[in-house]
Amino acid sequence: MGYSDVDWKAINTVRVLAVDATFKANSGHPGAPMGCAPLAHVVWNKFMTFNPQNPDWVNRDRFVLSNGHGCMLHYALLHLYGYKVSMDDLKSFRTVDSICPGHPEAHDTPGIEVTTGPLGQGFANAVGLAIAQQHTAGVFNKPNYELINNHTYVLFGDGCAMEGIASEAASTAGHLQLGNLIALYDDNHISIDGDTKCAFTEDVMKRFEAYGWHVQHVEDGDNDLDGIEAAIQKAKDVKDKPSMIKITTTIGFGSKLAGTGGVHGNPLKKDDCAQVKEKFGFKADESFVVPNEVYELCNKQSAEGAAAEQKWNDLFKKYSEEHKELGADLKRRLDPKKPLPEGWEKKLPIYKPTDPAVASRKLSESVLEAIHEVVPELMSGSADLTGSNNTRWKNAVDFQPPSLGIGDWAGRYIRYGVREHAMAAIMNGLSAYGTIIPAGGTFLNFVSYAAGAVRLSSLSHQRVIYVATHDSIGLGEDGPTHQPIETLVHFRALPNMMVWRPADGNETSAAYYMSLTSHETPSILALTRQNLPQLENSTIPNAIKGGYTLIEDENADITLVSTGSEVSICVEAVKVLSEQGIKARVVSMPCTEVFDAQPKDYQLKVIPGGKPAMSVEVMSTLGWEKYSHEQFGLNRFGASGAYKDVYKKFEFTPEGIAKRAKATVEFYKGVNPRSPVDRAFQNIL
Amino acid sequence: MGYSDVDWKAINTVRVLAVDATFKANSGHPGAPMGCAPLAHVVWNKFMTFNPQNPDWVNRDRFVLSNGHGCMLHYALLHLYGYKVSMDDLKSFRTVDSICPGHPEAHDTPGIEVTTGPLGQGFANAVGLAIAQQHTAGVFNKPNYELINNHTYVLFGDGCAMEGIASEAASTAGHLQLGNLIALYDDNHISIDGDTKCAFTEDVMKRFEAYGWHVQHVEDGDNDLDGIEAAIQKAKDVKDKPSMIKITTTIGFGSKLAGTGGVHGNPLKKDDCAQVKEKFGFKADESFVVPNEVYELCNKQSAEGAAAEQKWNDLFKKYSEEHKELGADLKRRLDPKKPLPEGWEKKLPIYKPTDPAVASRKLSESVLEAIHEVVPELMSGSADLTGSNNTRWKNAVDFQPPSLGIGDWAGRYIRYGVREHAMAAIMNGLSAYGTIIPAGGTFLNFVSYAAGAVRLSSLSHQRVIYVATHDSIGLGEDGPTHQPIETLVHFRALPNMMVWRPADGNETSAAYYMSLTSHETPSILALTRQNLPQLENSTIPNAIKGGYTLIEDENADITLVSTGSEVSICVEAVKVLSEQGIKARVVSMPCTEVFDAQPKDYQLKVIPGGKPAMSVEVMSTLGWEKYSHEQFGLNRFGASGAYKDVYKKFEFTPEGIAKRAKATVEFYKGVNPRSPVDRAFQNIL
Repeated sequence: MGYSDVDWKAINTVRVLAVDATFKANSGHPGAPMGCAPLAHVVWNKFMTFNPQNPDWVNRDRFVLSNGHGCMLHYALLHLYGYKVSMDDLKSFRTVDSICPGHPEAHDTPGIEVTTGPLGQGFANAVGLAIAQQHTAGVFNKPNYELINNHTYVLFGDGCAMEGIASEAASTAGHLQLGNLIALYDDNHISIDGDTKCAFTEDVMKRFEAYGWHVQHVEDGDNDLDGIEAAIQKAKDVKDKPSMIKITTTIGFGSKLAGTGGVHGNPLKKDDCAQVKEKFGFKADESFVVPNEVYELCNKQSAEGAAAEQKWNDLFKKYSEEHKELGADLKRRLDPKKPLPEGWEKKLPIYKPTDPAVASRKLSESVLEAIHEVVPELMSGSADLTGSNNTRWKNAVDFQPPSLGIGDWAGRYIRYGVREHAMAAIMNGLSAYGTIIPAGGTFLNFVSYAAGAVRLSSLSHQRVIYVATHDSIGLGEDGPTHQPIETLVHFRALPNMMVWRPADGNETSAAYYMSLTSHETPSILALTRQNLPQLENSTIPNAIKGGYTLIEDENADITLVSTGSEVSICVEAVKVLSEQGIKARVVSMPCTEVFDAQPKDYQLKVIPGGKPAMSVEVMSTLGWEKYSHEQFGLNRFGASGAYKDVYKKFEFTPEGIAKRAKATVEFYKGVNPRSPVDRAFQNIL
Repeated sequence: MGYSDVDWKAINTVRVLAVDATFKANSGHPGAPMGCAPLAHVVWNKFMTFNPQNPDWVNRDRFVLSNGHGCMLHYALLHLYGYKVSMDDLKSFRTVDSICPGHPEAHDTPGIEVTTGPLGQGFANAVGLAIAQQHTAGVFNKPNYELINNHTYVLFGDGCAMEGIASEAASTAGHLQLGNLIALYDDNHISIDGDTKCAFTEDVMKRFEAYGWHVQHVEDGDNDLDGIEAAIQKAKDVKDKPSMIKITTTIGFGSKLAGTGGVHGNPLKKDDCAQVKEKFGFKADESFVVPNEVYELCNKQSAEGAAAEQKWNDLFKKYSEEHKELGADLKRRLDPKKPLPEGWEKKLPIYKPTDPAVASRKLSESVLEAIHEVVPELMSGSADLTGSNNTRWKNAVDFQPPSLGIGDWAGRYIRYGVREHAMAAIMNGLSAYGTIIPAGGTFLNFVSYAAGAVRLSSLSHQRVIYVATHDSIGLGEDGPTHQPIETLVHFRALPNMMVWRPADGNETSAAYYMSLTSHETPSILALTRQNLPQLENSTIPNAIKGGYTLIEDENADITLVSTGSEVSICVEAVKVLSEQGIKARVVSMPCTEVFDAQPKDYQLKVIPGGKPAMSVEVMSTLGWEKYSHEQFGLNRFGASGAYKDVYKKFEFTPEGIAKRAKATVEFYKGVNPRSPVDRAFQNIL
């Protein structure tokens, strides 16, 4: 309470900076920053604790702008409060290589917690951040040591409110009773198509109440700073529910076009810029101006945050003396290099060719069983397919509000419900918090439901592990609606994503090894429902190269390149071919992206020139031309039936492979083909 | 009201058939059919009007099983009521090539309206079917001729209720006041992870009320047939709101495992099958038995439906005499061959090379403007990006409830809101209704949000058009969060999907020509934000081949294969190369899937052997190895900045292309490469 002129000056500075930056860029969204500046001021200046000198301090309050197109709001605040976002950075808004890109990107801009813009994502990320806080507190807080008690604030607009991912995340947050999560709904009645009444007339407050949230309404978000503050304070006081505060604002407040769609996604006209500046006490002909008293006001808050961090560091030091093991664990988790506990990898299961055939989803379960104790930051979960994804180790405790009696805050298994998209975005938030490695399961086919968030795992460098079982027509009876065809090439084409499709136990362990140690890259583990034999020459050191020679034959007529469940069928096909006088070698390629990163001479040894290579994978052949001359795959939808019958129907049998390998060898008779990995130039990466 | 023993016999027959079929298949979900048989009986036997002899009768009531895993419920009903689903078909449940696959597939099974199983989809499809009914009625109904007045019934479970797509669709349906839509919520408290209390504790009724639905609860869905009937009758009486009836049931009713997760996704054990049969008055040792009186009861309802259709046919005949034009239009729309109005294609815009450069999103708008009058079944729309997608013709009327005063039922423009996934699934429903061709816009990058439904457009053969603008880094300032990299190869790998990326005006017209005339295949039109020049040799007849030679040179050293916005840059690159003494030919490849369908000799003429081919497309290169020896693309995320700056950064300039073309020519000196389209064997399609 007790807001003065300097508060309004700070608010108006944010508005004018947004006007200036979008005008200069001739691009961007001034409307949301102008409408949300008052509420953002209250949140940042009265509630948030953070230290701009160390944006990674673990117990900072988080601020997520889910309506990421309004990012000039966030960039302006980062600048005013002393983050490493300079005035020149603001001036470079929306230009190539600026740290102020068109939508906020966590990896590149200090103070940006998560990458937003694709609507609904930030909201779900915030649920992840709030879960992470609650869990980390559950694990580390001890009597007299409330180490972890930060809040997560998320600002979202009508667009986010309409997205299904936000609905899923809100339902999850309500179930989980996340009292540390405060969502501010910028209720401005405008989306790109104009008035929300053309498509969005539901009662959002009632909907959030139905999810189990505490709900309030501030009717005059343009002026009523006291009302906003009181509502946030009340939200903080409600500890057993997430809070949603609907704040009615005027989009583009101050502009001639205030309250209209005209100010949403276009810079103001020049004369409008001038009148806005004058209205707010700035000079019409000056741009990118910050009054000193505004810097002072903001710096004061930042200094308090720095002091709070110092106090926290002292507390943590004392904690580490009293709780040595936990203190060391937290310290390790917070190390920017994200090291795993020493020797953890020795726990990875290793298999011999004589070991029994096992489905790779079960092999994955064995990995989780083996490592969960030595990798305490690993949190598993599933989108309501626990028994099918095999994501839960035996003695796992559910992450649940203790009041439900079915788990606790320290629990490491998350029941995401049938909410794949929110699961992925929540995992992005869990990873972004900094103390957790999330793994979440669904069928490979339904990772596609989460594509919007999976993409952001990659773009924002989050170490998220997608446990994607039932990875092909090999799932059998569920049929074409559940059988992936296009899915693997989709995610192989996604930059900074590792798609693993292990062929047996050692390759499954290798996939986990790489997923856990690649701390800036997410992974999708494509795993079978059906059993797979343990292969000769499959080892963890081989498989972590992404692709390797499983069966060598220096006089081979052909190389078979395969993944996952088809590798062992290729091994059988070698015998069939041998009976026909054709010599074949076999390459197992569990992860093309990792193979791509190997030295060229290694790649050429694995897939040599002078003989044709044929890929074998029981789904779309697209992309396999990169590693083979001919491709055997499935460029149609699958079929519902017992898995062996379905494989037979499509000739994914030793004989079916041999038939095509023979055709390939004949087609290449007299030709001396180059290796497909031998290329004229390197693409831009 | 007035249910007798034979009603319960019919209900129990459905239950026992589901038990028998899942037991025989040793796979499937008996629980939902056993729990939902009573409510399904009331819907089918008391309310639904349909004629199994003509499953395509337009004014039939629709039944959608959104919890598609419970499909034995639907298959059993189809059999009992006389659809072409025989007892042998039921016995072949979940075996290869059965018309009773693991989840319902609309294209293959008479009486299945839409393809369900992926959760939430059926619910959103039903919203589409209801919109289609309301719109078709709005267009065709006249005083004394209520031609179109069917209802849509959708059954959904907890899984669907958790999915974001269903939330989006429910919000849309509430806004649109779809009084013809009745959703039955199978409230059984069980999902795959067990009790829903572990992840799903929201108040679903309150949530639907918040969306603007009429909501009721039947507490004893296992026994209270009268209560179910009364609730449905009430729902029918409420004309200005969609209705949701929560019906509390016991999953696996009758089984020893009733009410538990054990009966959800696994067949009953043998002894349980026996006791279920005895409990319901069947012989324990007999399977697949239907009492005659059950057939009679069901056939009576079907006969009434057949009579209703006959009456409707008479009405339609009279209508066609009185309203000649409308009658002829509806008759044409209902023709199974789905012919478009004669001569419609003459309206497609044609361009000369001297015409100005225009963004293909604008070219798309020109097509819609030109053809919307001659193709009255075309309904356009956008997921809240109307001004950016350019999906709305000038005088379009919104499809809206008349009471809102912003449109009417006959309106042909749908405001989907920021709900991409629901938009796609609603379009699947619109298309499945039979009288509409839906087109819906969003940014190409956000078609990925809808991937789950886009996949079902393809699998269920729906003629749905995705207007996907802002198709590359060429969108500029919005940056990497909005710039597609992996998206085109994702959807190119999807069977039965046409991905079009036109390079200019004539190619855009060609894309629409193919999208509109391929009535069993959906399309994605990838369109630019930036302007594109009109190209020499680009014609509609050329472009509808999917790929064609734009610049021929019989002595060429290299073929450049390109799409969309990069084609004109390739044309410029030819000049740069020519200055360096390198001769290049250019192929424009707006749609690889259509090119794949051309005769081999045509393909080899377009991409001949003997010289290298290099692809140029400003996104993932994956998949381009199929049509080229070398690939120039972008295998990383983009950048935020003015589009020309971004293209320059990544060297997508005539010079950047020429540099790589030169490297390719040198790399292939002395090699006589095969055409990449010349292959050893044909893949399974």
